[in-house]
Amino acid sequence: MRRQITGFSNPTVKFLKSLRDKKHRRREGKFLAEGLRLLTDARECGRLPEMLVMAQGREAHPLLSALEADVLAAGGDVVETSEDILSKITGKDNPQAVCGVFAEFDTSLAGVDRHAAPLWLVAQAMRDPGNLGTMLRTADAVGAGGLILLDDSVDPFSVEAVRASMGAIFTQKLAVARWDEFLPWLRGGEGQLVAASLREAVPYRGAPYAAPCFIMVGNESRGLPEDYEMACDLRVTMPMKGRADSLNAAVAGAVLAYEVLAALEA
Amino acid sequence: MRRQITGFSNPTVKFLKSLRDKKHRRREGKFLAEGLRLLTDARECGRLPEMLVMAQGREAHPLLSALEADVLAAGGDVVETSEDILSKITGKDNPQAVCGVFAEFDTSLAGVDRHAAPLWLVAQAMRDPGNLGTMLRTADAVGAGGLILLDDSVDPFSVEAVRASMGAIFTQKLAVARWDEFLPWLRGGEGQLVAASLREAVPYRGAPYAAPCFIMVGNESRGLPEDYEMACDLRVTMPMKGRADSLNAAVAGAVLAYEVLAALEA
Repeated sequence: MRRQITGFSNPTVKFLKSLRDKKHRRREGKFLAEGLRLLTDARECGRLPEMLVMAQGREAHPLLSALEADVLAAGGDVVETSEDILSKITGKDNPQAVCGVFAEFDTSLAGVDRHAAPLWLVAQAMRDPGNLGTMLRTADAVGAGGLILLDDSVDPFSVEAVRASMGAIFTQKLAVARWDEFLPWLRGGEGQLVAASLREAVPYRGAPYAAPCFIMVGNESRGLPEDYEMACDLRVTMPMKGRADSLNAAVAGAVLAYEVLAALEA
Repeated sequence: MRRQITGFSNPTVKFLKSLRDKKHRRREGKFLAEGLRLLTDARECGRLPEMLVMAQGREAHPLLSALEADVLAAGGDVVETSEDILSKITGKDNPQAVCGVFAEFDTSLAGVDRHAAPLWLVAQAMRDPGNLGTMLRTADAVGAGGLILLDDSVDPFSVEAVRASMGAIFTQKLAVARWDEFLPWLRGGEGQLVAASLREAVPYRGAPYAAPCFIMVGNESRGLPEDYEMACDLRVTMPMKGRADSLNAAVAGAVLAYEVLAALEA
């Protein structure tokens, strides 16, 4: 169905705005993604928004027209509104001219097929939505199967995380689990658990990586708990030439992931 | 000098708050850094704040006492204030219990000694303070000499960039220059300019890196201008296995920097 919305107090506007809040996303089981590029990525991955929200008076764009047609054909809603209202919804002064509402995905560990890819990223208690989105983007780039979020993680469906993923939220499998659920699952099949560590570790270059390889990074300020590190099959160190003793979590994951990719392809 | 401040309207509080704003930082030539860890890093690098601002009623900490003594001995100010006022200054709900005001550093290209380190990071038109700080942190980790910011960059002295650098703002040389100033400077001596690129590039692993190696990354959304890429001595590609055609800028810089480090040390 296609309709126009002109008032800030319209219930649809309130609903859309509420999706910037984690509590409401959880209750509704839905999230927001912004921008024609992200929505086109989603569409090409077979994911259509249930509702497409567009700014009025925008220039026609063939990708937007295609998206609109697909959403309508799938029985979804298309809403036209003002740029002001779109700003209100996305919380940005210069909103991208379109956003969409998606149903949240199944994030159960049971949905992960470990043999679907040679490597996987795992992030423990990640706090920063930008880091989370960046890890999804990196996972896509290295051909990983997806990202597994352990323990109390920032919400992967926040607008910031979705934005930083640059569309990888739609291409990568996302799972959320507690450590005491993840470890038995991992040990129930093939899989090498690897972490950057200073404890009894080998140099990260030339380490004996094996597929499916699960690369785990820890919380931004505390790193990994010691027992998590000790449960790893392989602990590796990266050079730290300066004063700092750690890298940004998303950076550490990426440097390691590219190393594992090169090792597995050699 | 040591003093107490109790009112929100105190001129010192106004001055400190104003340092969250780029315009005021530029005018004053000063910036804010927060947290005992960051300030201790600074102190160990021989950088003392001109003014140290501490929350009242905090627990004594030997590193804080040492810092306070050094600041007073150097003729600096020590200010005690409430947690509420400290929140107001840093713009954070849970401020770290201490912050400091530093004089901005010399960021001229003339201050860069290219032979001081085997590699350097270069970021063009970087927009995100978190990415900028993360690149400084990575530069420290790989033993780089510093970070050179080209063209219109986000302010490296913003609270967010300083925070994300995890102290590397004090250990790394920081320079700011326009491209048409940087390129002649680079060509006035030894130095290999390297960028990740899709144009006539070689695989990033095993590429002929040479010190001093300048690793350049482009703007977060536009990447590097074509002429910047073509001016490089070496263009390298990294595997992109998924749908995305690029990595986060700070991630790309880090993966490349670790590769260059390994190559130069081999």
